[in-house]
Amino acid sequence: MPHIDFKNDFPGIRGAAFYRPETGKHLYYLAQVLLHGPSPLKEAERELIAAYVSHKNDCMFCTNSHAAAARCLYGEEKKLVDDVLNDMKLSGINDKMKALLNIAGKVQLSGTEVTPEDIAAAKALNADDREIHDTVLIASAFSMYNRYVDGLACITPTDTKLYEEMGKRMALGYTT
Amino acid sequence: MPHIDFKNDFPGIRGAAFYRPETGKHLYYLAQVLLHGPSPLKEAERELIAAYVSHKNDCMFCTNSHAAAARCLYGEEKKLVDDVLNDMKLSGINDKMKALLNIAGKVQLSGTEVTPEDIAAAKALNADDREIHDTVLIASAFSMYNRYVDGLACITPTDTKLYEEMGKRMALGYTT
Repeated sequence: MPHIDFKNDFPGIRGAAFYRPETGKHLYYLAQVLLHGPSPLKEAERELIAAYVSHKNDCMFCTNSHAAAARCLYGEEKKLVDDVLNDMKLSGINDKMKALLNIAGKVQLSGTEVTPEDIAAAKALNADDREIHDTVLIASAFSMYNRYVDGLACITPTDTKLYEEMGKRMALGYTT
Repeated sequence: MPHIDFKNDFPGIRGAAFYRPETGKHLYYLAQVLLHGPSPLKEAERELIAAYVSHKNDCMFCTNSHAAAARCLYGEEKKLVDDVLNDMKLSGINDKMKALLNIAGKVQLSGTEVTPEDIAAAKALNADDREIHDTVLIASAFSMYNRYVDGLACITPTDTKLYEEMGKRMALGYTT
């Protein structure tokens, strides 16, 4: 049960965002442009970074829903999503994404954890400035979304089927 | 020096936000409505929560700038800001704010750290649902802003006078 009365029964962040739409709408706009707007990173890669950070933050709602969205977007390669969540370094994701996920994992701990060496390693694998920027902002933004969802104890469904349906909608983008 | 080439010399989050204005504008809109839009919490209290969380995240730019904004807004009571940053529990801030800052401190660690007891303690001191919501979202949002600033190694000035000027402008609100 949420810590406060949202006056709605929406699961996850939707419950909190609709309780306070003045802030909620900006949270959705940011997710839309960051995960589905123009970027040198594919939408699948961005949803995977979101799921990876949410998993590290132990946020069940965001992990399950963004992993479901990433699986939809990866299509036939969807096994990569679970492999990355299980053990990113041992997974079959490409080396550039490993370097970017390494940066995302540092950001999840603290922005100050990211070293010039982490950045240089990503650049050596042809990650450009914009890809590094988007990775850092996605990891930062999910450090917000995850805390917002769990800090208010938003409703977290346990039905896998429900996240699959959610993932299909999320793969198309975010609207309030 | 920032980890990537922002193609501008703006200090702090402004450098990153102007590098990627499509996301930057939503970061500013969110800060504006959350810290300076309608809320049962005073603007001074909201800037103080932002400074408190930034301090816990060791983000020098956000701590210095939001503490400066909070000092402006607290006016004659500005000493409270530094007292809270030094030792919140021993500071002279009122008990309701202590309970809300306790929740903000838990959110800074992880959303899952917030307990029903933390919420009950705030409610017993007359914090309402909206105040608890705004506290959790401010603490969550600064867990994003702090990571974005430090994860990209944004320019962090050391001149105290510069933060004082920044705080005066920020106390009036945020625009891109």
